[in-house]
Amino acid sequence: MLYFLSDYTEGAHPKLLESLARTNLVSQPGYGEDEFCAAAREKIRQACGCPEAQVFFLVGGTQANLVTISALLGRTEAVICAETGHIAVHEAGAIEYTGHKALTLPAVEGKLPAAELERYMEAFLANETREHMTQPGMVYLSQPTELGTLYSKAELTALYALCRRYDLRLFIDGARLGYGLMSPAADLSLPELAGLCDVFYIGGTKVGALCGEALVFPRGDAPRHFLTMTKQQGAMLAKGRLLGVQFDALFTDGLYWQLGKWGVDRAMELKRAFLEKGYPLYMDSPTNQQFVILTPEQRERLSREAAFEVWEPLPDGRTAVRFVTGWATQKETVEALIRLL
Amino acid sequence: MLYFLSDYTEGAHPKLLESLARTNLVSQPGYGEDEFCAAAREKIRQACGCPEAQVFFLVGGTQANLVTISALLGRTEAVICAETGHIAVHEAGAIEYTGHKALTLPAVEGKLPAAELERYMEAFLANETREHMTQPGMVYLSQPTELGTLYSKAELTALYALCRRYDLRLFIDGARLGYGLMSPAADLSLPELAGLCDVFYIGGTKVGALCGEALVFPRGDAPRHFLTMTKQQGAMLAKGRLLGVQFDALFTDGLYWQLGKWGVDRAMELKRAFLEKGYPLYMDSPTNQQFVILTPEQRERLSREAAFEVWEPLPDGRTAVRFVTGWATQKETVEALIRLL
Amino acid sequence: MLYFLSDYTEGAHPKLLESLARTNLVSQPGYGEDEFCAAAREKIRQACGCPEAQVFFLVGGTQANLVTISALLGRTEAVICAETGHIAVHEAGAIEYTGHKALTLPAVEGKLPAAELERYMEAFLANETREHMTQPGMVYLSQPTELGTLYSKAELTALYALCRRYDLRLFIDGARLGYGLMSPAADLSLPELAGLCDVFYIGGTKVGALCGEALVFPRGDAPRHFLTMTKQQGAMLAKGRLLGVQFDALFTDGLYWQLGKWGVDRAMELKRAFLEKGYPLYMDSPTNQQFVILTPEQRERLSREAAFEVWEPLPDGRTAVRFVTGWATQKETVEALIRLL
Amino acid sequence: MLYFLSDYTEGAHPKLLESLARTNLVSQPGYGEDEFCAAAREKIRQACGCPEAQVFFLVGGTQANLVTISALLGRTEAVICAETGHIAVHEAGAIEYTGHKALTLPAVEGKLPAAELERYMEAFLANETREHMTQPGMVYLSQPTELGTLYSKAELTALYALCRRYDLRLFIDGARLGYGLMSPAADLSLPELAGLCDVFYIGGTKVGALCGEALVFPRGDAPRHFLTMTKQQGAMLAKGRLLGVQFDALFTDGLYWQLGKWGVDRAMELKRAFLEKGYPLYMDSPTNQQFVILTPEQRERLSREAAFEVWEPLPDGRTAVRFVTGWATQKETVEALIRLL
Repeated sequence: MLYFLSDYTEGAHPKLLESLARTNLVSQPGYGEDEFCAAAREKIRQACGCPEAQVFFLVGGTQANLVTISALLGRTEAVICAETGHIAVHEAGAIEYTGHKALTLPAVEGKLPAAELERYMEAFLANETREHMTQPGMVYLSQPTELGTLYSKAELTALYALCRRYDLRLFIDGARLGYGLMSPAADLSLPELAGLCDVFYIGGTKVGALCGEALVFPRGDAPRHFLTMTKQQGAMLAKGRLLGVQFDALFTDGLYWQLGKWGVDRAMELKRAFLEKGYPLYMDSPTNQQFVILTPEQRERLSREAAFEVWEPLPDGRTAVRFVTGWATQKETVEALIRLL
Repeated sequence: MLYFLSDYTEGAHPKLLESLARTNLVSQPGYGEDEFCAAAREKIRQACGCPEAQVFFLVGGTQANLVTISALLGRTEAVICAETGHIAVHEAGAIEYTGHKALTLPAVEGKLPAAELERYMEAFLANETREHMTQPGMVYLSQPTELGTLYSKAELTALYALCRRYDLRLFIDGARLGYGLMSPAADLSLPELAGLCDVFYIGGTKVGALCGEALVFPRGDAPRHFLTMTKQQGAMLAKGRLLGVQFDALFTDGLYWQLGKWGVDRAMELKRAFLEKGYPLYMDSPTNQQFVILTPEQRERLSREAAFEVWEPLPDGRTAVRFVTGWATQKETVEALIRLL
Repeated sequence: MLYFLSDYTEGAHPKLLESLARTNLVSQPGYGEDEFCAAAREKIRQACGCPEAQVFFLVGGTQANLVTISALLGRTEAVICAETGHIAVHEAGAIEYTGHKALTLPAVEGKLPAAELERYMEAFLANETREHMTQPGMVYLSQPTELGTLYSKAELTALYALCRRYDLRLFIDGARLGYGLMSPAADLSLPELAGLCDVFYIGGTKVGALCGEALVFPRGDAPRHFLTMTKQQGAMLAKGRLLGVQFDALFTDGLYWQLGKWGVDRAMELKRAFLEKGYPLYMDSPTNQQFVILTPEQRERLSREAAFEVWEPLPDGRTAVRFVTGWATQKETVEALIRLL
Repeated sequence: MLYFLSDYTEGAHPKLLESLARTNLVSQPGYGEDEFCAAAREKIRQACGCPEAQVFFLVGGTQANLVTISALLGRTEAVICAETGHIAVHEAGAIEYTGHKALTLPAVEGKLPAAELERYMEAFLANETREHMTQPGMVYLSQPTELGTLYSKAELTALYALCRRYDLRLFIDGARLGYGLMSPAADLSLPELAGLCDVFYIGGTKVGALCGEALVFPRGDAPRHFLTMTKQQGAMLAKGRLLGVQFDALFTDGLYWQLGKWGVDRAMELKRAFLEKGYPLYMDSPTNQQFVILTPEQRERLSREAAFEVWEPLPDGRTAVRFVTGWATQKETVEALIRLL
């Protein structure tokens, strides 16, 4: 079976396993106070160009989202996101479980348009009954988005300017950040992204780690007692080293970027083949998630030899599907799929 | 430095790392639906003698506690625990954050006496204003306890009988279960324990895994939508295989029990030495946590070469301290410490 | 100033104040266990034609909504409502604060169309990742709606049939129920409405009481420990009699219906005048809230002598506004306004 | 039946009902923005000697407690209270439902001793694992206490000094404040009490109102968006005037203090009679709750003609019971009870 189901269907890049084995019996304190976490934090600060950044390691994406959002929102505040935002759809109401509304706005190709944000905020501020409403306190977006698209530097700059105007914090979910920043379409560097938001995370789980997301407060202004909050939500690992060792390896010799580039390169090979063979794109994605439209015959035929995700049945009987490549996708697997198209 | 700080200061038993490396590039679905989790679940069911058990893998102890307790309690229910219970003291109010009170009762050597539970429940049921009170819905206990002590089969049987009488679920935190069941003082097998509670977990983090706790509902009666609840609390790993592979290895050829026995054996060597050299015990523990009382001179001298935890300053100027051994403690380390006593 | 701001701008119908004065010094137990609450409950059961109904008195609408919704939803469940639903907009995120998502669907004239509900549920059930999503557990609607419109018997029957098919509870917010059932357009009686939902409330605050909503479980199947839940949310009055006395008076000699009819009759007078004088309706409402569109000149002129609410600025410079009548609106006030039009 | 069950078993002082009737048809905006609330706030500010105070009206005691505590605590903070504190026992876990732990300390005669608070805080600050614990953020106490006792000015001064030293907010539950301040044993005025805490409330429900508590932030430093928080918890009345009119009447011509004095005077008559007739006190209370110990024969005999609350069965077969007087207790009722003793 040719596996394109997602980017979390294999273990970890071998260098990470080697690092885990090499450091395995070094005794270290728990809860992220070990030397491996310290080294990883320093390397991430350098990669971000943010010497004052605070870096916290969390296990997964939903956890990173709920911990961060609930830590940064005031009691009566809500988080704004695109209607296709992961937190609004596929996280089982995790944000609401922490007591906050996820306010969804119309999205364009998976992205939150600055104009929609501005329109919402102006209407909110003009509303005389707004003291009876939950206040917007934060904007959440994903880079790349749930549909594989990318915010350009100009788009992110415009959104962040609005956030500052309206006193909203900007949080970027970077679960697939490696694939986003290494896309041929990317016009943003990591330090630039760090300068255009208040907090973001660098996804490890989907870019070569067994698990782990590195949450970065670029200006070192994490909320007081943030660690206690992670403990309170069951998000603090006793063996924090598990995450520190892996991120230390990912940020050594540019491994994280190599893995990101590898995954995107495979996706671009696939995209070219889809276009050449006349498969219509459901979404024009420059990153490692590729969305195409299959006829019933194509879907039936391909699914016999390849694993991919059904995204949405279309009214005309065809189906939008998603093929995901990643750090672990082999060239041969892509070539084999292309031969089937 | 001789390291006795805790049982989570090293990585994982090498066999687990080998399993992770061996299975690393096998493509598998996420979220615990992989074949490794399936195999591990089956081995755990067999070890528990519970063919109908449901087994869920969670990352850590606080997470397992808050997920389980919040899933099993009704909206107005509280969990009863010993005043020294981990959930009441060292989990940052995680239970309260899920909306439930942790009702603490007096403990004896870290254990909740059945008589205390009965007294509380009788007083509650006799209280005419109890509709204005949070209702006890569950009993939480740790085996071994936070003070290294063990519930005997008779004690657990008595507690479980009370739980059934009063319609309380019984939840056993087994973060250190391997050390508990392999103690020379243990009179309980794993199947017996599984028969004396409603839900429990088998700790991996402290007994040889990088991370992971195996939550077992012995009679297969986990609440509906339990997986969605774990997602909602950020406790569902994308790469569930990380936990499956490790528990599969731990429950192959009795590795889990060997690691438990190793840790306890080292603790017993240490305990004998303490007693022989006249160090008073602060708590008479038959498991891998040893609590002794040090004079200021002893504390000062030992802390120069060994890492251990200060438990409690005593009124007479001496200090209760904790030495923890584990699966990774080397015989030589114990011998070196003994020579220092 | 001619007051049309809302239906909660005066105190209580004099008969309620008289009842409060008459019963004032009778000693009674607290927390709704008094004889006045008992009498009111019995009268409401009779009015609903539901001899087995359970009736609880709560202080206000938002409180009734959050208490009921959080009591009836499972941990991972969400409540579905129209995008214009009060709980989704003007209750400060109260539902989310209890941990649950308010899932909004497109509305038509303030009403949730059965077709939208069916489409959402079918898509949800077809979604293979739904275990990662919050599950719909309840439908919330208002009768009359936030825009003054009414669900017909056929519409409500269709919605309730869908609720039963999909295992959703149906909850009707009747904050203005008196005005809804006494509308000339109403084709539903109170017993019929009680038979077409799982729980609803009869609004007192807006229909002649100082405060109070009567929550009715027509089939007597309130969740266990419901009273404790109200206590837990600060919604249990020590002097429950305050609500019992008032609802007893409201349901004596049909006073509740007289007040409802009075308010609607005044609204119909106003509506006829608007139409005669060529004011376009913003919404064609058959109940006590009337929405019309004013030119800037009209708005300026009317607001000098009348108090009404700005509903929404329109793109063409005109303004949608709301005039509300109620049990306390005097005929003379309506006539004076009509003279100004 | 001679009624001594509680101080909320009658309606309201007639002057409050008269005020409600007199103002009944004056049209006013909702949500506490009416002129009656404004007038009441001003009178309360004057009575407190705090011209900058912010005053909010809430419906009842549990509501006031949970709204205030959840508004003032940070995400990871807990509230400290006496083990007999109302919030810890009789509020159905309302504080925990808002996500916060109620940390109980040993009490002496219902009061939290400053020495206990200091001991707890010193141990907490010395605890090296305190980042894994919930942080104390507030002290809650009741004046008078749940056992009728009073904090002296010296005791309150000592507690407040500790609160400032440890950065704890001090919140005083004054559900029975009128009875406390008018006790012959009181050495505190209202302005003095306002100066010795960060927030407190003046109980109306138990001192002559139909419902209502006036929450006072003496220095005008209520949290931002406090009103939205009350809305979010269902604690904002549409007809806020109901509370404004009543508190305006209570704080006109010293009515609140007259009612408090009346209730205490009746209690003192009762207490003298108990002592004269040899009934042992269970608690020596200087306020309107009197606790005495009855033999089985006395209990049986008195309960035939008087309603009082069983407080606690004693091991020797006798029973501690509570007799409560209040603003509505008639002299004749007290005399009749005394004749029965």
